[in-house]
Amino acid sequence: MLIEVICTGDEVLTGKIVNSNFSYMAQKLEDVGLAVRWGTTVGDDRETLLAAFKEAGARADAVIVNGGLGPTVDDLSQEIAAQAAGVECVLNEEWLARMESFFLRRSRVMPPNNKKQAMLPSTAEIIDNPIGTACGFALDIGRARFFFTPGVPRELKRMLEEQVIPRLLAKSGLQTTIHLKRFHSYGLGESHVDSLLTGVEDLVPDGSVKLGFRAHYPQLETKLTVRGRDLDDARGKLGPVEKEVRKRLGNFILAEDEQTLEGVILAELAKREATLAIAETFTSGQIAARVGPLPGAEKILRRGILARDLGDLWRAVGPPGDPPRGELTREIAEVVAMTLRRATGATYALAVLIDLDEGADRIEFGGSICTAIAGVNEIASRRSRIVGGREWVRLGAVEMGLDCLRRYLQGLPVTERIDFEKT
Amino acid sequence: MLIEVICTGDEVLTGKIVNSNFSYMAQKLEDVGLAVRWGTTVGDDRETLLAAFKEAGARADAVIVNGGLGPTVDDLSQEIAAQAAGVECVLNEEWLARMESFFLRRSRVMPPNNKKQAMLPSTAEIIDNPIGTACGFALDIGRARFFFTPGVPRELKRMLEEQVIPRLLAKSGLQTTIHLKRFHSYGLGESHVDSLLTGVEDLVPDGSVKLGFRAHYPQLETKLTVRGRDLDDARGKLGPVEKEVRKRLGNFILAEDEQTLEGVILAELAKREATLAIAETFTSGQIAARVGPLPGAEKILRRGILARDLGDLWRAVGPPGDPPRGELTREIAEVVAMTLRRATGATYALAVLIDLDEGADRIEFGGSICTAIAGVNEIASRRSRIVGGREWVRLGAVEMGLDCLRRYLQGLPVTERIDFEKT
Repeated sequence: MLIEVICTGDEVLTGKIVNSNFSYMAQKLEDVGLAVRWGTTVGDDRETLLAAFKEAGARADAVIVNGGLGPTVDDLSQEIAAQAAGVECVLNEEWLARMESFFLRRSRVMPPNNKKQAMLPSTAEIIDNPIGTACGFALDIGRARFFFTPGVPRELKRMLEEQVIPRLLAKSGLQTTIHLKRFHSYGLGESHVDSLLTGVEDLVPDGSVKLGFRAHYPQLETKLTVRGRDLDDARGKLGPVEKEVRKRLGNFILAEDEQTLEGVILAELAKREATLAIAETFTSGQIAARVGPLPGAEKILRRGILARDLGDLWRAVGPPGDPPRGELTREIAEVVAMTLRRATGATYALAVLIDLDEGADRIEFGGSICTAIAGVNEIASRRSRIVGGREWVRLGAVEMGLDCLRRYLQGLPVTERIDFEKT
Repeated sequence: MLIEVICTGDEVLTGKIVNSNFSYMAQKLEDVGLAVRWGTTVGDDRETLLAAFKEAGARADAVIVNGGLGPTVDDLSQEIAAQAAGVECVLNEEWLARMESFFLRRSRVMPPNNKKQAMLPSTAEIIDNPIGTACGFALDIGRARFFFTPGVPRELKRMLEEQVIPRLLAKSGLQTTIHLKRFHSYGLGESHVDSLLTGVEDLVPDGSVKLGFRAHYPQLETKLTVRGRDLDDARGKLGPVEKEVRKRLGNFILAEDEQTLEGVILAELAKREATLAIAETFTSGQIAARVGPLPGAEKILRRGILARDLGDLWRAVGPPGDPPRGELTREIAEVVAMTLRRATGATYALAVLIDLDEGADRIEFGGSICTAIAGVNEIASRRSRIVGGREWVRLGAVEMGLDCLRRYLQGLPVTERIDFEKT
């Protein structure tokens, strides 16, 4: 099935906003085994919109149009859809009533120009938008089925997942359910994970499980897409593959599906009613900045300290004596973590200290990272060297600090060797 | 002149990467008075690439193609460009020699598959890429001039600005130079700035100055595009308008052109050989995270402290006595800033404290922000209330803290009322 996507709107065409709706839609379709073949971006302009709709209608089996369903004069999708399909726009009383009750629930009177949002092509099938006033709809233009979706990301997301994708799957005739399982890992490169997972797809002999990756350094996402008659069938097939992936990637799996590394850490801390203090150098405080914005973090993240070097950090955290000179060691990080824990009264303290190379930024530029975690009865630490330029070292140090903490809280070894470190 | 952009590559088409090259190109063209009329995204696939090139060649005057110039088998731009133009690909000895010396300078032998990058359509005009092995080129397909550019963002950037845009301007026949002047402000909304600047364009009666905005909360970018015979003429016309904008927006202008708020602050501090310490609550340490990654910041940003509430911050910074109870005040922020300055030995200390509303996140959710800056002889502070949901308050507090510091360092009043605060 040939699927196209048309993104509309002057803000997207002029680059005022980056078109993340497109990549979101393409990824979502890929996750269910469908693929976008062609993407078009046009502005709020009658002539180009009409041309784009007609071309896609001549070429594709299904077209998703994004944007142009709003109440203002430059929202043209319904009007041009009707023109391209050769039908009239008519007032849809059902959607008008929906909008009026939408405003009523918010104790507001519907402004007159919103009525425009209920003017739909006469042949349109309504596609529900439970969280906004832009009415989704589907109709045929040329040989293709067109699906019109709102530009507001959260409205698009809900409509695509709940309404458009099931219709696309039905139209594709696959008569199958797709289930997606995701594993997030840190410390193994894509080709390493690929070779570790050789043959896992063959655990389901009918070829209905597909393995894929998405790398966003320092994390890697491993995706299993499985096709089945229904959700139970898909999950049944996935079971043994999922188990095998967990076994082979082991401690490197830091989260699954919608989970995040920082979310997993926060959940572990919340479970124990524990608090956390963090001391960082060089990272610009990005470890605390990852944990801080999560819901509930304000109770758990007790203190974050950022210092420009070990000397300043030593004075800020306050262990006895002068800051140590010479090479940065695990023991120094341990002293900082233990002192920080005592000083703040936090249940756990994480210290991430970095000794940077001298000189200008370059691809061989590196740093030694000493990480320590102090807890109730136990202290853990590791020392690693990462190279690849300042920003790469910074990103790597933040992820390593967080992942060591995750491992510590889950009772896993924090010193397991990773692919990104040099010795 | 009708300009189209074609972005190629499976990574973009499948949404694996968000297409920020497109928005970058569209913005750059707009900045020089040109506009993109149509955008197309296709994968690394012969059939769709050929169709996309032919359609654009029939429709547009100029087409920018991005991507597909690399050395691997799925890089198809040269091959399909030749096919669409009805010519052969031939080895370009000049570019081959360029590539060989490129590798030689890096003490590496050129891998054989890179030779493919010197296979260009026989009618191609070479467009220089001084920082990579992908050769840019231009040729005619249909009625349009096509410009082929590399997918690597920094190579694209350089080639677009230095090579492609001058050719497009020449082709457009405008025979003019475009100069862009940008002002960054914080604290005034877009419509407010629009009304403050009413009539500034008319200071140049021939209509060659155009005013535009780009809002990215909490900052606003005001853009003046001026058209002239040459750069001197353009700058001459811009002069009085620029002066008037500076006069009307006054203290609210925090940076110009490529400058950033955090960069301006760091430059002010570097000029005085001063250091900075920052204490924050609720912001997840995002004030320090803005300043920290800049070149040279590791010498200047002496300490960052993040605490979950005033009590914890009080204990971390260490003023005498118990943490104050009751309403958060400017005076409390001043005590924190002064104590922090003394404790760290920093030249300046910034304290940003927030008293959040109770209850769940919602659009009316707000917070009171108390900001104080302690310096050598003088302390400054302000109290503001911002509403709009947790994330909005967080963004607003970070920007307000940084902008107060900028104002303080520049000798401007830190208490000037802004549009985003409620009373």
